[in-house]
Amino acid sequence: MKQFISTEDVPGVPRLVDIALDYKKNPHKDKGLGENKTLGMIFLNPSLRTRLSTQVAARNLGMEVVVFNIDKEGWQLEMNDGVVMNGNTSEHVREAAAVMGQYFDIMAIRTFPGLKDKQEDYSEKYINQFIKYAGVPVVSLESATLHPLQSLTDVITIKERWTAPRKPKVVMTWAPHVKALPQAVPNSFAQWMNAWGEVDFTITHPEGYELDPKFSGSAKIEYNQEKALEGADFVYVKNWSSYQDYGKIINSDPAWMVTNERLKNTNDAKIMHCLPVRRNVVIADEVLDGPNSIVIPEAGNRVWAAQAVLSEILKNGK
Amino acid sequence: MKQFISTEDVPGVPRLVDIALDYKKNPHKDKGLGENKTLGMIFLNPSLRTRLSTQVAARNLGMEVVVFNIDKEGWQLEMNDGVVMNGNTSEHVREAAAVMGQYFDIMAIRTFPGLKDKQEDYSEKYINQFIKYAGVPVVSLESATLHPLQSLTDVITIKERWTAPRKPKVVMTWAPHVKALPQAVPNSFAQWMNAWGEVDFTITHPEGYELDPKFSGSAKIEYNQEKALEGADFVYVKNWSSYQDYGKIINSDPAWMVTNERLKNTNDAKIMHCLPVRRNVVIADEVLDGPNSIVIPEAGNRVWAAQAVLSEILKNGK
Amino acid sequence: MKQFISTEDVPGVPRLVDIALDYKKNPHKDKGLGENKTLGMIFLNPSLRTRLSTQVAARNLGMEVVVFNIDKEGWQLEMNDGVVMNGNTSEHVREAAAVMGQYFDIMAIRTFPGLKDKQEDYSEKYINQFIKYAGVPVVSLESATLHPLQSLTDVITIKERWTAPRKPKVVMTWAPHVKALPQAVPNSFAQWMNAWGEVDFTITHPEGYELDPKFSGSAKIEYNQEKALEGADFVYVKNWSSYQDYGKIINSDPAWMVTNERLKNTNDAKIMHCLPVRRNVVIADEVLDGPNSIVIPEAGNRVWAAQAVLSEILKNGK
Repeated sequence: MKQFISTEDVPGVPRLVDIALDYKKNPHKDKGLGENKTLGMIFLNPSLRTRLSTQVAARNLGMEVVVFNIDKEGWQLEMNDGVVMNGNTSEHVREAAAVMGQYFDIMAIRTFPGLKDKQEDYSEKYINQFIKYAGVPVVSLESATLHPLQSLTDVITIKERWTAPRKPKVVMTWAPHVKALPQAVPNSFAQWMNAWGEVDFTITHPEGYELDPKFSGSAKIEYNQEKALEGADFVYVKNWSSYQDYGKIINSDPAWMVTNERLKNTNDAKIMHCLPVRRNVVIADEVLDGPNSIVIPEAGNRVWAAQAVLSEILKNGK
Repeated sequence: MKQFISTEDVPGVPRLVDIALDYKKNPHKDKGLGENKTLGMIFLNPSLRTRLSTQVAARNLGMEVVVFNIDKEGWQLEMNDGVVMNGNTSEHVREAAAVMGQYFDIMAIRTFPGLKDKQEDYSEKYINQFIKYAGVPVVSLESATLHPLQSLTDVITIKERWTAPRKPKVVMTWAPHVKALPQAVPNSFAQWMNAWGEVDFTITHPEGYELDPKFSGSAKIEYNQEKALEGADFVYVKNWSSYQDYGKIINSDPAWMVTNERLKNTNDAKIMHCLPVRRNVVIADEVLDGPNSIVIPEAGNRVWAAQAVLSEILKNGK
Repeated sequence: MKQFISTEDVPGVPRLVDIALDYKKNPHKDKGLGENKTLGMIFLNPSLRTRLSTQVAARNLGMEVVVFNIDKEGWQLEMNDGVVMNGNTSEHVREAAAVMGQYFDIMAIRTFPGLKDKQEDYSEKYINQFIKYAGVPVVSLESATLHPLQSLTDVITIKERWTAPRKPKVVMTWAPHVKALPQAVPNSFAQWMNAWGEVDFTITHPEGYELDPKFSGSAKIEYNQEKALEGADFVYVKNWSSYQDYGKIINSDPAWMVTNERLKNTNDAKIMHCLPVRRNVVIADEVLDGPNSIVIPEAGNRVWAAQAVLSEILKNGK
């Protein structure tokens, strides 16, 4: 694996999941693999789980880790080519990425979308500029439109819980929120569910929240949440802003909040969320604190997802 | 030791002091103890000594360290239960603490009081929420009402300097400041002096600055600073805001600043302060730069206090 | 070497360059040298290359590294002696430096000039206060008037590219910028070129941008950029504000921007810059993206410069 931005970079999803689950059993078995290698973690935006779990994963592999909040500890980068840089940006990504590529063996980057310009966000300009100039393998810590470490984690979390001979019914449901959020997590979850293929996958949301078909792909779309959730084995809850009316909150119907009542016709479904979650807005306390929530072990699996990805790049990336 | 929040968590103060002084002689003797263990250091507030000394201590034990300024690199946490999270908080401590507990073997947390609501601060709501949900041992890097790593350091610093057969006279004196400061350091110093028991302990402050009796305990209270300081062997200087008129500066009499003149009737007392100290407001230059100030070696001892605590938790915490 | 602030601390520039180039060939050959030693990196100002390359260098030597953004993660330091600290500064450098000296074996510090008070900046008050009170070797990560890790890097970068029997012609040219920048990089480059002595060194800038003669020394000064660049083998581009009319932009003539046209009479000169560089203000895209730009490998050499300096201090600093 030479980079990790989307499913397209992954030779096989099931194999990567197996590698992650092996690390979960024996976190320090490859402590020599990253010896004398450095991971640079570059944040253009805040992070909790991704930041912390990836550090732990890299150290489990014996890598050095350097964390750099470039937005706070450095300065603003210019992402556009050909610009006369007489404004607020102090350094061009052409230099910043290339220089960091001189220091690090792998670069991991978090960069959120602006949610103003759909074309710019969906071209993944920011992370692609880093990839173009870094000269070393790049790992996404969430980019404008995808969050692959989260989605790999989600596959792992479903896989380790499902032993029945049939495919589990997985339903991703939109839920309300007070802010306009990126589509990165739902796009990515859909892309990975489709690439994995071992689930019966449905997406439910109010009309107007359709995701980019490039990512939703062959998923069933059902506008009636109650109907969608019938018989679900796993319910993946997430808010996102509109892709069509780009970056807008076009509906924030509180009836879409996930409650026990809403979940009563599922197949005793496990509840997943990438976190952070706004309690009693997106999901009710009773669900998060109930026996079916798996959001904490799901977050715990972030370590093994990151460790699988880093190990594959260390083995094959150069 | 399963956590480190107050003296109540410590099986024996003298034993912990001995462990610390052993590490001071041989810092790297237990380099294997923390192998493949990670300390997560979570800051909700700024820090210099605590931050740096605890990192050094953990590395001396071979632990990995991950530092996270959650207030700056993450987002605001919700600490209250049952809330509809449609405001400024993005994640509930129930998730944040539990998730970090998935990544770390020990969590160390700094969280200051608001100084608005005595009951909330003195219930130690913030650090208790972390303890409740982390699922791993929690070490206080200073909480709303106590600063145990500082106080253990202070015991160490007195202990290593006192060889006479009698108990030393230790006087903690309030001193002026321009800001309303927490009672955490004086509460904690009093609690540790009382728990240690090997000192003759007096507290002096203007009327109205009485500490919570739960912490001042059996200490002598003397409102006349000059009288209190007579014959002192150690003078511990610190400002704090009122506990009774909660969080208020009710008196800022500059005559309480610690000067050589004020110290003339002590027993050639050593001068201690937790730092940072505002020079010529709290303590005069002449004292801090004089031969009796031990504030720098006191701060140096922070490493050995933290190392003793972490080692005890690594040995017995789980 | 006991500290690293300027060429005056360096026993021999060529020897230090050789040490650096040896590390470039074998980065991990001295992995045991820094065992159980900690480098404290203290930032009073932002940094990218210096921050990241020095961390990598220290880890290559087996040192622990603690990074502390004292301006953001701590509080404001008082640098003046004898002050009544009732204002915005919370801790005096006398305590802060001395305490950090208790925790670290080497302290590295970045502190920019205010560009208001020439005398204060040129006395190097800030870094000198750290040196005075730290009690351990101090390495400059750029101070008010000098940036020695950058300049050592620049010597390395020229040295490894020049094999002809004659001295290379090195021209440092001022170029326009939108902000008033320190003189630290040009002062330092001049000082190191003069100390190294193995180059034919010219400085060109508009009138009024003369550097402190203490640093420009024996360099040729030429006010006509075109004439200065004739026959140059290396062109070192940098903006700086006026030393005479201290901290002011007295001329921002865009004709001084470095373009291919401007470089046509050089000896196919290699183009250097310390970065960050504002494209199409300081240097044109065509130059930075052209075959003669060596700014990226120059930045890469920062690691070896830092590693040479740290190794010399580890060997001889105490």
